[in-house]
Amino acid sequence: MKNAIVGQSGGPTAVINSSLAGVYEAAKNRGADIVYGMAHGVAGLLNEDKINLSQIFDTSLEIELLKRTPSSFLGSCRYKLPHFSETTEPYEKIFKILKKLDIQFFFYIGGNDSMDTIMKLSDYAKETGSKISFMGIPKTIDNDLMLTDHTPGFGSASKYIGATMKELIRDATVYGTPYVTIVEIMGRNSGWLTASASLAKAEDCEGVDMLCLPELPFYLNEFLNKVEKMQQEKKSIVVAVSEGIKLPDGRYVCELSNDARFVDSFGHKNLTGTARLLANQVAKNINTKVRSIELSILQRCAGHITSRTDITESYQVGGAAVRAAFNGHTGEMVALRRISNDPYQCITELYDVHKVANFEKKLPIDWICENGTNVTNNFHRYARPLIQAELTPIYINGLQRHIKI
Amino acid sequence: MKNAIVGQSGGPTAVINSSLAGVYEAAKNRGADIVYGMAHGVAGLLNEDKINLSQIFDTSLEIELLKRTPSSFLGSCRYKLPHFSETTEPYEKIFKILKKLDIQFFFYIGGNDSMDTIMKLSDYAKETGSKISFMGIPKTIDNDLMLTDHTPGFGSASKYIGATMKELIRDATVYGTPYVTIVEIMGRNSGWLTASASLAKAEDCEGVDMLCLPELPFYLNEFLNKVEKMQQEKKSIVVAVSEGIKLPDGRYVCELSNDARFVDSFGHKNLTGTARLLANQVAKNINTKVRSIELSILQRCAGHITSRTDITESYQVGGAAVRAAFNGHTGEMVALRRISNDPYQCITELYDVHKVANFEKKLPIDWICENGTNVTNNFHRYARPLIQAELTPIYINGLQRHIKI
Repeated sequence: MKNAIVGQSGGPTAVINSSLAGVYEAAKNRGADIVYGMAHGVAGLLNEDKINLSQIFDTSLEIELLKRTPSSFLGSCRYKLPHFSETTEPYEKIFKILKKLDIQFFFYIGGNDSMDTIMKLSDYAKETGSKISFMGIPKTIDNDLMLTDHTPGFGSASKYIGATMKELIRDATVYGTPYVTIVEIMGRNSGWLTASASLAKAEDCEGVDMLCLPELPFYLNEFLNKVEKMQQEKKSIVVAVSEGIKLPDGRYVCELSNDARFVDSFGHKNLTGTARLLANQVAKNINTKVRSIELSILQRCAGHITSRTDITESYQVGGAAVRAAFNGHTGEMVALRRISNDPYQCITELYDVHKVANFEKKLPIDWICENGTNVTNNFHRYARPLIQAELTPIYINGLQRHIKI
Repeated sequence: MKNAIVGQSGGPTAVINSSLAGVYEAAKNRGADIVYGMAHGVAGLLNEDKINLSQIFDTSLEIELLKRTPSSFLGSCRYKLPHFSETTEPYEKIFKILKKLDIQFFFYIGGNDSMDTIMKLSDYAKETGSKISFMGIPKTIDNDLMLTDHTPGFGSASKYIGATMKELIRDATVYGTPYVTIVEIMGRNSGWLTASASLAKAEDCEGVDMLCLPELPFYLNEFLNKVEKMQQEKKSIVVAVSEGIKLPDGRYVCELSNDARFVDSFGHKNLTGTARLLANQVAKNINTKVRSIELSILQRCAGHITSRTDITESYQVGGAAVRAAFNGHTGEMVALRRISNDPYQCITELYDVHKVANFEKKLPIDWICENGTNVTNNFHRYARPLIQAELTPIYINGLQRHIKI
């Protein structure tokens, strides 16, 4: 039996390490000699930056801590492999290192961009006759991967957003005075996370008053009119706005702001300041107190409140990838398929990674209400099972305990 | 036996309703006929806006939910009573309403400004021969009340900040690239909450790299130099900055920003944008990625992560105020006195509210390290017991359950 290596890539989530735990335990259980971790994904691997995980995960307590530790334990990267038709240099380097480490199984936990890496590496392996198996394990809070019912990481982010909105809504009503709260939520081009703000509504919470989803064009005047009209009937208005809403001309709304901007190596613009910009517009045009709040990276790293359903599924997709690789699969991603909604049940299946990489799954337009500012019960039926149950952190001396390399 | 009334005032906390629960249960146990709640504090009372709490808190389950419900259950206000030497009009109105409701005991849960209200009402009662007892119950996340060892509400905010910083620090190191994260924390003129960011440091967390406390003047150039120097040794630098840091000329740093500003009825400036402003300065002057994060109101309303020590003490100060009032006290505030640190033990005591109202307790200067950017172990010994233990929310259908009027 040969060795396995596993990496984490892209933005971290609160549960990405549960997938790492799933890979590690399944690979050990199936007889892998050494399970390596790439430090900072493929970018680190190119420098032969690796960790022998068997030396770190000595006991089952460490695995339990790993499941409860947010952000990528192994470190992450945003490295995009050039296609091997352009240059084979990084490929030769990677395969040389994999050979040196006697790697038979390669696992990569990530989103769209990470599946692009798995696609290219497995294609190159086929071209060159390598027998190494390359498997993708889905992860992203954005829930924008194709073919899978949902992505591990989404449920916990969704739960964090729902729970936080409940608290913000209560806070915003406390003075009983006119007040507009605008909350900025992640999700570059898909509204899954912003829609999750609507989960706050319940017997004990009036819910969010308005969603601004990136699936629809954003008209500033219309927005201001709606806010003003709503406030005639209700003093505290809470709006959940996606960081990625766009003007009719295709520019991001936040591009109107004067903050410094930044473009990453995948060409993604750094989106921030949408809520602040809208709050300033409200302050200028409507006679009300206003506040903007960015949930910022807390929505992806708040390990202190996670969905146990999500943690469990994250662990399962890691294990399923190992099973598939050991059975000879390569160039595939594990996906979740919902076989029943009541009771909620999901199984794992496999898809050719070419069908996943570089696509984005958006919120279905017919799940958005006709007024464009809320989602239908279809969304709630879909998302509610994903936020069920909790995995309590282990608190030591007043704070949650994590595991660190 | 006559009736009691209780109000909540000023900014909400995650545990202010535990004090309300303490007042309600103690007053009922001591034989009060009706316990009223003021809707939106004294401002609501002036409109005779009240709630019969006995009709709401039917069962002990409701009390348990109340303890776990953040933000002021009764609503709050920022109403400042004029002194009765200026006008007796609001006083006559309030005492008429209290007489009509047959009130013998008046409890007000709040911070500095709320203690000002208790002081004025109890002074007026003495002047006019009223026998109503007025008692103050401390509450503020800022921990800036005099004479009490700490304020109920601080422990939970401190725990939230420590837990959140641990998560943010992990997230910020994930790419292993140069990165400056600037986190803005509440606390207008006192650094108790910002200092709490230092609690993140532990075996499993490298901790915050720099605190900017409002007790010391802020020099922008010195700040930029320190950040640049630190980053030569360590790629990810995390800075916790108080919203209330001031330039040597006395202006708040955030006044340099171009955001709309707002002054409340107590003359307090709305402080926001400090972290964003500093992040823009870092981006201009240092070759690094940078992000600013405002913990915003989540630090005061995150009922999903609270300190059980804090919840318990909040309940106790409510009960202690009732006991004192029923024993004939008036014009006093309940305070906490630490009688032992190891093991941690606190008792309640009473202080003349004149000694508390309108003063601010700052972080002791000798608890700040000589370099001005960290706190000594004295702070840790003081704060660590206050964040101990948890009170788990009751989760229904995936989200925490609250109680609502």
